[in-house]
Amino acid sequence: MIQHPAFTVEPWGIRECRLHLDVLPQTESVFALSNGHIGLRGNLDEGEPHGLPGTYLNSVYELRPLPYAEAGYGYPESGQTVVNVTNGKLIRLLVDDEPFDVRYGTLHEHERVLDLRAGTLTRTVHWTSPAGGTVRIRSTRLVSFTHRAVAAVHYEVEAVDDTLGVVVQSELVANETMPGMDSDPRAAAALEAPLVLEENTPGTSGVAVMVHCTRASNLRVAAAMRHQIDGPSGTRAEADGGDDVSRLTVATQLKPGQRLRLIKLFAYGWSAQRSRPALHDQVVAALAAARLTGWDGLLAKQRKYLDEFWAGADVEVEGDAEIQQAVRFGLFHLLQAGARLERRPIPGKGLTGSGYDGHAFWDTEGFVLPVLTYTHPRSAADALQWRESILPQAEDRADQLGLHGAAFPWRTINGEECSGYWPAGTAAFHVNADIADAAVRYVDATEDMAFERETGMPLLVATARLWCSLGHHDIEGHYRIDGVTGPDEYSAVADNNVYTNLMAQMNLRAAADAAVRHADRAQELGVGLEEIAVWRDAASAMFIPYDERLGVHPQSEGFTRHALWDFETTKPEQYPLLLNFPYFDLYRKQVVKQADLVLALHLRGDAFTPEEKARDFAYYERLTVRDSSLSACTQSVIAAEVGQLELAYDYLGEAALMDLHDLEKNTRDGVHMASLAGAWTALVAGFGGMRAGSGRMNFSPRLPDGITRLCFRVRYRGRLLCVDITATTTTYTLVHGHSLTLHHHGEEFTLGREPVTRTTPITPVPDQRLHQPPGREPSPRHPGPSPA
Amino acid sequence: MIQHPAFTVEPWGIRECRLHLDVLPQTESVFALSNGHIGLRGNLDEGEPHGLPGTYLNSVYELRPLPYAEAGYGYPESGQTVVNVTNGKLIRLLVDDEPFDVRYGTLHEHERVLDLRAGTLTRTVHWTSPAGGTVRIRSTRLVSFTHRAVAAVHYEVEAVDDTLGVVVQSELVANETMPGMDSDPRAAAALEAPLVLEENTPGTSGVAVMVHCTRASNLRVAAAMRHQIDGPSGTRAEADGGDDVSRLTVATQLKPGQRLRLIKLFAYGWSAQRSRPALHDQVVAALAAARLTGWDGLLAKQRKYLDEFWAGADVEVEGDAEIQQAVRFGLFHLLQAGARLERRPIPGKGLTGSGYDGHAFWDTEGFVLPVLTYTHPRSAADALQWRESILPQAEDRADQLGLHGAAFPWRTINGEECSGYWPAGTAAFHVNADIADAAVRYVDATEDMAFERETGMPLLVATARLWCSLGHHDIEGHYRIDGVTGPDEYSAVADNNVYTNLMAQMNLRAAADAAVRHADRAQELGVGLEEIAVWRDAASAMFIPYDERLGVHPQSEGFTRHALWDFETTKPEQYPLLLNFPYFDLYRKQVVKQADLVLALHLRGDAFTPEEKARDFAYYERLTVRDSSLSACTQSVIAAEVGQLELAYDYLGEAALMDLHDLEKNTRDGVHMASLAGAWTALVAGFGGMRAGSGRMNFSPRLPDGITRLCFRVRYRGRLLCVDITATTTTYTLVHGHSLTLHHHGEEFTLGREPVTRTTPITPVPDQRLHQPPGREPSPRHPGPSPA
Repeated sequence: MIQHPAFTVEPWGIRECRLHLDVLPQTESVFALSNGHIGLRGNLDEGEPHGLPGTYLNSVYELRPLPYAEAGYGYPESGQTVVNVTNGKLIRLLVDDEPFDVRYGTLHEHERVLDLRAGTLTRTVHWTSPAGGTVRIRSTRLVSFTHRAVAAVHYEVEAVDDTLGVVVQSELVANETMPGMDSDPRAAAALEAPLVLEENTPGTSGVAVMVHCTRASNLRVAAAMRHQIDGPSGTRAEADGGDDVSRLTVATQLKPGQRLRLIKLFAYGWSAQRSRPALHDQVVAALAAARLTGWDGLLAKQRKYLDEFWAGADVEVEGDAEIQQAVRFGLFHLLQAGARLERRPIPGKGLTGSGYDGHAFWDTEGFVLPVLTYTHPRSAADALQWRESILPQAEDRADQLGLHGAAFPWRTINGEECSGYWPAGTAAFHVNADIADAAVRYVDATEDMAFERETGMPLLVATARLWCSLGHHDIEGHYRIDGVTGPDEYSAVADNNVYTNLMAQMNLRAAADAAVRHADRAQELGVGLEEIAVWRDAASAMFIPYDERLGVHPQSEGFTRHALWDFETTKPEQYPLLLNFPYFDLYRKQVVKQADLVLALHLRGDAFTPEEKARDFAYYERLTVRDSSLSACTQSVIAAEVGQLELAYDYLGEAALMDLHDLEKNTRDGVHMASLAGAWTALVAGFGGMRAGSGRMNFSPRLPDGITRLCFRVRYRGRLLCVDITATTTTYTLVHGHSLTLHHHGEEFTLGREPVTRTTPITPVPDQRLHQPPGREPSPRHPGPSPA
Repeated sequence: MIQHPAFTVEPWGIRECRLHLDVLPQTESVFALSNGHIGLRGNLDEGEPHGLPGTYLNSVYELRPLPYAEAGYGYPESGQTVVNVTNGKLIRLLVDDEPFDVRYGTLHEHERVLDLRAGTLTRTVHWTSPAGGTVRIRSTRLVSFTHRAVAAVHYEVEAVDDTLGVVVQSELVANETMPGMDSDPRAAAALEAPLVLEENTPGTSGVAVMVHCTRASNLRVAAAMRHQIDGPSGTRAEADGGDDVSRLTVATQLKPGQRLRLIKLFAYGWSAQRSRPALHDQVVAALAAARLTGWDGLLAKQRKYLDEFWAGADVEVEGDAEIQQAVRFGLFHLLQAGARLERRPIPGKGLTGSGYDGHAFWDTEGFVLPVLTYTHPRSAADALQWRESILPQAEDRADQLGLHGAAFPWRTINGEECSGYWPAGTAAFHVNADIADAAVRYVDATEDMAFERETGMPLLVATARLWCSLGHHDIEGHYRIDGVTGPDEYSAVADNNVYTNLMAQMNLRAAADAAVRHADRAQELGVGLEEIAVWRDAASAMFIPYDERLGVHPQSEGFTRHALWDFETTKPEQYPLLLNFPYFDLYRKQVVKQADLVLALHLRGDAFTPEEKARDFAYYERLTVRDSSLSACTQSVIAAEVGQLELAYDYLGEAALMDLHDLEKNTRDGVHMASLAGAWTALVAGFGGMRAGSGRMNFSPRLPDGITRLCFRVRYRGRLLCVDITATTTTYTLVHGHSLTLHHHGEEFTLGREPVTRTTPITPVPDQRLHQPPGREPSPRHPGPSPA
């Protein structure tokens, strides 16, 4: 866990005041920069020491065989793993022949700041070499939101007390040696030297270009760099290179107070089809455009892009500075993951690390897109267009499994399934309804009918067809979906998972409705009235099990008759349970890894009475151990809905600080996009009580004691709304757009040019705090210090 | 499939009249010789051509890593695979410098006969070489039942028309090149060169010895050979060797009618602990003893051993010569698998091939031991003593899984789990009750109280403890066993599998009863009255689900609500289903690979009314596709019990001819011990209606039209009984032993010195034939030709 105060608490930045080598891998993830196309981990400029060197291009992966002790029909034979591509951020420094290395000499000062409004990572160093030469170093790094292919570093070294010989080496390096990963099955498999050199043109004429091709997946990757050098007279630069390295070496003599400045622009391109010369030219052209913009221009465009984002997405939290910081940090990383996606996936860890092999999961549709839909809708559309682009693979997979429509992969980069354990992979068919749900939400939030027609329709039709081949009617006419796995990975292959059945019901109805709206498009997709009727019938007959004895919904049929997990004798160090107990034992007992039925209470809240929600939530609280980062935010939302505000606040803290505090001890592999999204969701859907759907937008604001004011902005149907909540009042403002009808705690009102203020109702303190498994209670939320 | 007439139908032998190279791998399995300690596949003397070279020693295995695409807690990391040890049966022949190879020259005659009374494999060849030299070859091979470490070949070559230069090379060869196996997940993984040479002493002084050690499992294997040569004067022999070969070369000149005779004795020894010199001496000593006995002595002892076996085990079938042959073939292979077991396991394919990696499964206790218990009880005791010997590993495994008592491995050689797919491995906990059941049956059949005390008690106590940690009481007080896999491998990880629950109930009660009988032994094992009470309580509260709507028992809770498999559209070539459909699809639908609930009807027949048996059997007939060799025999038994005699007869045919007709197309990997046992079971428990337990022995004879007489002998409580059934009468004879009480169709009588004859009741022709999945009906049984 990253111990406080690795980072200071401030509203618009993440600041590490001195270097914490013990948490270097984690800070590399936290300080990662990305625009959704390029991702640079926050590695030190000089490359070493490092936790995990990381430079990623969205969807550049290598294939690897998936082995099985006992093979089976339909098991994927080949897996995909994100690869660390050519490192362009490397800048080495020698001071009087001593390499600058933070592990040697004296580090007087070392500060790193991720600036959430500037979109930069800056570093300030004051260092005396073992030989006694003292320098100040300032570097600023960015991955451009506006120049999709470009990243840049502004690097400055200054002699402090003495005249020093200074050499700076700026490099492109491919096939960096990767440290071994541990044996946690969730950590990524390391791949050795995946890039085969095709071209290495040194930068003697200004631009250095390297082109590689991945060994098995046959993806061509080009990287280029060019520099602007500003140093005392006599500063000399020369370019060289060989094998997997391209290097610009700048040598100079700095008198005290003199500086050497290097502006490094670097660009990436990749393609499965384009030729080496084409890619070569592409990256050279990208650098030419970036050079025209210049460093200051890149900085200015970066800030402008972010200003526009924050204007429509910011969340203000008063009373809890840690949460204020965390929710902005989360939104920033979400933007970084989705900004320039352009029909590529958002992996579970974005482009911030190689965790989960760089795969995209249902996390994206279930947790990330609901946030982007209301804050940066273009990214949500992009991510869903990627799903539409992999429909052929999903249709092939369905066919292989003997099903109709599309079976989207549980985990993938290129669209093909690479889950090697089907009970917690292929069997988790809910991913298909999650995709449909994200598409429906996007259309509801944007009224983007062109999207619905071109992207939404094929997705809805293919997933509805899947559900019709997965389910069947029983003797009583109930529509059953047997033998599937819900969100909770501590149960698997069970009948009538309530979450899955309710989401499938929504999916079937949405497909029917869309097909009616777009009759010609439906016809193109082969959907007739009979098929629509079949969908509606299955939806209305959908079986939702209920345990009358206990008055709660079983997560899946029979779940509430299983033995309770023996929480009392489970030791703290035995969590996460999946690393210490067999699946066999987990699956057959009442123990929940992550919100499953409780996620249904959120996403299909219309299917439950308030009393059912309260009873169900209380029941599952006793069972949920949160061994997943995909749980606390949902528990926060429903805790707030059922009036357990302090508990909701605790869960908010856990979701929001997942990566800043490294709560799951794997932030080293990349930050958790879904949990970062969850901070927003806990605030907006939880304390803001926002629920939207079918053109109806409701807010049910209520605040816990620790938060004195919560103000957030959301985009909805062409409007930008601002909701400003205090303990007593809630004010709705239309920042721009036409007036619209809203609901406040269910009460309808019209919001026009004038702000509307309503009372924030008082939530009675609940009779008693709910119980969690012993030792698995969320940390009580003690509000952090006020912002400076 | 082996097409008729690969083998002729005869009562006491398996005869192949001409060489069928297309089914060579299958005939190698059928013609395999074994004594339970050594196994020799029926490879041609000269080694080539071959399907799969095979020489096995019980429990000599190599370790190999078990890979997983996604690892999990408790997954076995290391697997065990039976290894092909030093081949001692190899005898090459050169005729005027032309190697004898059946693929070249002219094969005038080639006959192989497995003699079930002599215990030998003989071969007669009449061959003309490409160069025109004609020879007759006669070889006889045996693996001695009486000399546990010894096998022998009597090899004779005769010049026919011309004087010929003849050279015979008799060899020991290790690390033979193995042909690649196909990708069927059930087929064994091939291992390359597992043996590391430690000693190769050529036979210049008469005895050649080779000692090897397996690379990873560190088992030392010694092989030795010595020869007796009888040829014309001038015959010369010399020994040489190197690396993994030891060779005796005999050269002679044969005039027409002259013969060269070679008697080769070879011996094996292995140990995990004994030194190279100790093993060297052990095999040399074994050869000395065998030489003293001599070839004729070995043959005589072999026949005497078999005469004694058949006297107590033979089954006579009149009216169906194929079944007559098959049941004796099956009994012979069972004896071969169990004769000299001496606390080692009986693998699923005995020592006849490397199928299933040479692993032992529940097949042994569930199918093989019930036959050996009544025919060769010493072997049943041996196999159960092996289980007792691996209790420490089973207790460790239970501990690793968080359970009490012992969790016996699903598949193993050395006692450690090596199943790489837990839903159809570790989760199939019924293996533990099957072991308990076999121990209870053995004690009931033999009254061997020393065995019960020393071997039965630890097994019963450890398995009862397992069930007490696997189950739990629900709100209503029912004792539930959730999330386990029953015998049917097309369902997995389900709640309250009826077979498992009923067998666990038996297990718990048997443990309680045994603990009361052996109070002091129980005390040694830490069993007190409270624990016994817990066992009895769990047994009496055991939950047995029942579907009131359909009036049948669901195989597991909820099973009968699942969708029916779409048998109509399943194509014939899509069987076995597991190779063409995902487990996901199989598990969630009503489709049954092999008898599961129907096996409960047999082994726990006391728990069902006759009407329930009839309804349950009819229901599962519609669903059972028999993609397993462990099904037809059980279906035959219950079909007979519910009066479906012709159907029972069809299933008998399938069980009995599984290997002789290669019905599952994998006889090449070894014969199916459980199915071979099933032929006996279908006859004795099916048409003989034998049910024994708690000292009560009942027969309910009834014969199908095709069988005019069925006469079998069984051993029970020190008696040897003969039951002679015709369509009208059944005569019980006490061949030896004291008088005892028996039951005939439930009617008690006492059998003393005088035979007792009772009427065989007429079974009414059932109203209608039951339905099986389309295309999966058993082949109608057309009785074969009468014996010659």
